[in-house]
Amino acid sequence: MADDVPMRKRVEEYIHKLQDDIVGAFEKLDPNAPPFKRDSWIRPQGGAGRSCVFAVPFSPEGAPPPQTILEKAGVNVSVVHGTLPPPAIKQMRADHSSIPDIANSVPFFAAGISLVIHPRNPHAPTVHANYRYFEITQEPTEEEKAAGKPGELIAWWFGGGGDLTPSYLYEEDAVHFHRTIKDACDAHGADLYPTFKKWCDEYFFIPHRGEARGIGGIFFDDLCEESHKRFADDAKRPKSPDDIFAFVKSAGDAFVPSYLPILERRCRTPSTEAERRWQLLRRGRYVEFNLVYDRGTKFGLMTPGARIESILMSLPETARWEYMSELGTEAETREAQLTEVLKTPRAWV
Amino acid sequence: MADDVPMRKRVEEYIHKLQDDIVGAFEKLDPNAPPFKRDSWIRPQGGAGRSCVFAVPFSPEGAPPPQTILEKAGVNVSVVHGTLPPPAIKQMRADHSSIPDIANSVPFFAAGISLVIHPRNPHAPTVHANYRYFEITQEPTEEEKAAGKPGELIAWWFGGGGDLTPSYLYEEDAVHFHRTIKDACDAHGADLYPTFKKWCDEYFFIPHRGEARGIGGIFFDDLCEESHKRFADDAKRPKSPDDIFAFVKSAGDAFVPSYLPILERRCRTPSTEAERRWQLLRRGRYVEFNLVYDRGTKFGLMTPGARIESILMSLPETARWEYMSELGTEAETREAQLTEVLKTPRAWV
Repeated sequence: MADDVPMRKRVEEYIHKLQDDIVGAFEKLDPNAPPFKRDSWIRPQGGAGRSCVFAVPFSPEGAPPPQTILEKAGVNVSVVHGTLPPPAIKQMRADHSSIPDIANSVPFFAAGISLVIHPRNPHAPTVHANYRYFEITQEPTEEEKAAGKPGELIAWWFGGGGDLTPSYLYEEDAVHFHRTIKDACDAHGADLYPTFKKWCDEYFFIPHRGEARGIGGIFFDDLCEESHKRFADDAKRPKSPDDIFAFVKSAGDAFVPSYLPILERRCRTPSTEAERRWQLLRRGRYVEFNLVYDRGTKFGLMTPGARIESILMSLPETARWEYMSELGTEAETREAQLTEVLKTPRAWV
Repeated sequence: MADDVPMRKRVEEYIHKLQDDIVGAFEKLDPNAPPFKRDSWIRPQGGAGRSCVFAVPFSPEGAPPPQTILEKAGVNVSVVHGTLPPPAIKQMRADHSSIPDIANSVPFFAAGISLVIHPRNPHAPTVHANYRYFEITQEPTEEEKAAGKPGELIAWWFGGGGDLTPSYLYEEDAVHFHRTIKDACDAHGADLYPTFKKWCDEYFFIPHRGEARGIGGIFFDDLCEESHKRFADDAKRPKSPDDIFAFVKSAGDAFVPSYLPILERRCRTPSTEAERRWQLLRRGRYVEFNLVYDRGTKFGLMTPGARIESILMSLPETARWEYMSELGTEAETREAQLTEVLKTPRAWV
């Protein structure tokens, strides 16, 4: 696509293609499973989206569910626009230092892809990824309006990341996931992966459990031309819109190769009911993180008119809670091995 | 007990006896089920508690679980004390107008009983109740310390309530639950039930779903001698410590008669897998309320050193989430009947 195409259009085109590629890859892996359900929606306040959702129809009268590779999955694209009132701008400035101090309401544009994959097999990890682009502009002039153009750009940034949440630790899976993502990062600056790996460990953390949600990956936000609180000014990292977008595309394109080989080699591992139980307990922790701490989820739940079904698409089909469960506490077990690595994040590559 | 016994002792004795009575009632109802597990614990920063928890051991290799009446339940008593730093006092003053403006740290005392019962049968409702007493005092003088007495009382209040969360609506159950609680309230002032019923509908509400958690009951907080934001000054309600404690005891004593007859008549209702599925979806909503909105849970999760297992005891054994589930949306179904009453709270008595 020519470089004079506006960034919002280029991002929109990219995330729709990435959504198709990702959904296609899962459908090809399990051709006998029901296809993802494509669900296009319109946001009444401006914009639209498409949710692609995998679920297995409920089995009546206790019949065992069809043995699909995935249990529940959602790959969601949204491209929305509207007006940010001053209190929302103020709140946003806390996280995004590139936003100037503006006293009036301004137009915004946001485009993103967000996905969570919960496989059925307890030995196959859950994965999450999310890439997004945000713009704040001046109100368009009459001429800009007539030409169908947005107003002058005030601030823009990219954010995103991806992380892996296994119930059972396979070190080679963790290494493969991190290695693939690191390679995608390194091509765009040597400081990206170490900075975003650390940020991911800090972000996907459940304080009340004293443990990470999973074995990490990368997380970043507020990436733009301005100075960034997590980078030195001379850090090796992309700064221009084109260079940052190129990095985001590399990270997005790395999703399928980072995860699919892991899913392929774990999805048919024989498993026991006790392993399923542990998987469901881990899914309970996933629910705790998403509902109590995840900024995107919290922001979404507080936003009047938000599309709740898309926001909560990330939740697992089934989760379990036990009081003082002994699982994960008995030394030398595979469950305790996971708990240990969640309490002490490791360098995988 | 003689009236010159300090309130904190009287409350402590009452909630321990109530815990025994409630747990005993459930154990008597289902004598073949495993007994509640009694779990006494010490709070390192001061105080202690006892959790009584019901759970069914996990069935290995897919054997059907034993058909107990309860699926998961917790009845927790805690009696704790410590020091409230100025920021905590400030935060507390927002909800408790009886607390004066204090600049220094002060001792606090809190005693409460909290319970959640999740029965197995989809036709039997989940129930929650909680009664608590709170004191803030001056630092004890040397003489008070020597006599083992707390410092002079600065503020005190009672709080509590109980609410019913069915998956299937049985109007006679809702009427029985509210009637029993209303009778317990009315003996202590005609304004209690109407005020606390409304407060309950407002509190147990899930804004992002636009629906109540269940069919309500009562909820109250900050009940003391001072004027109260929900009562006119001449309202018919108890004001002295003795009168408020008498009301709280009536409400606590009403728990078993308000709920057990409902559980007895629903616990053996034949049910289908589709009804179980709906029950698990409703439990997902219960999790959403407790993790996202419940003040006690949120406060607990943010408190360093809090006993997480006791705080999250309220979560169900299993919960389920579906994207855009059709259950509850199809007119004229029993599921839609529940959804409707959750969207428009009713006067039951």
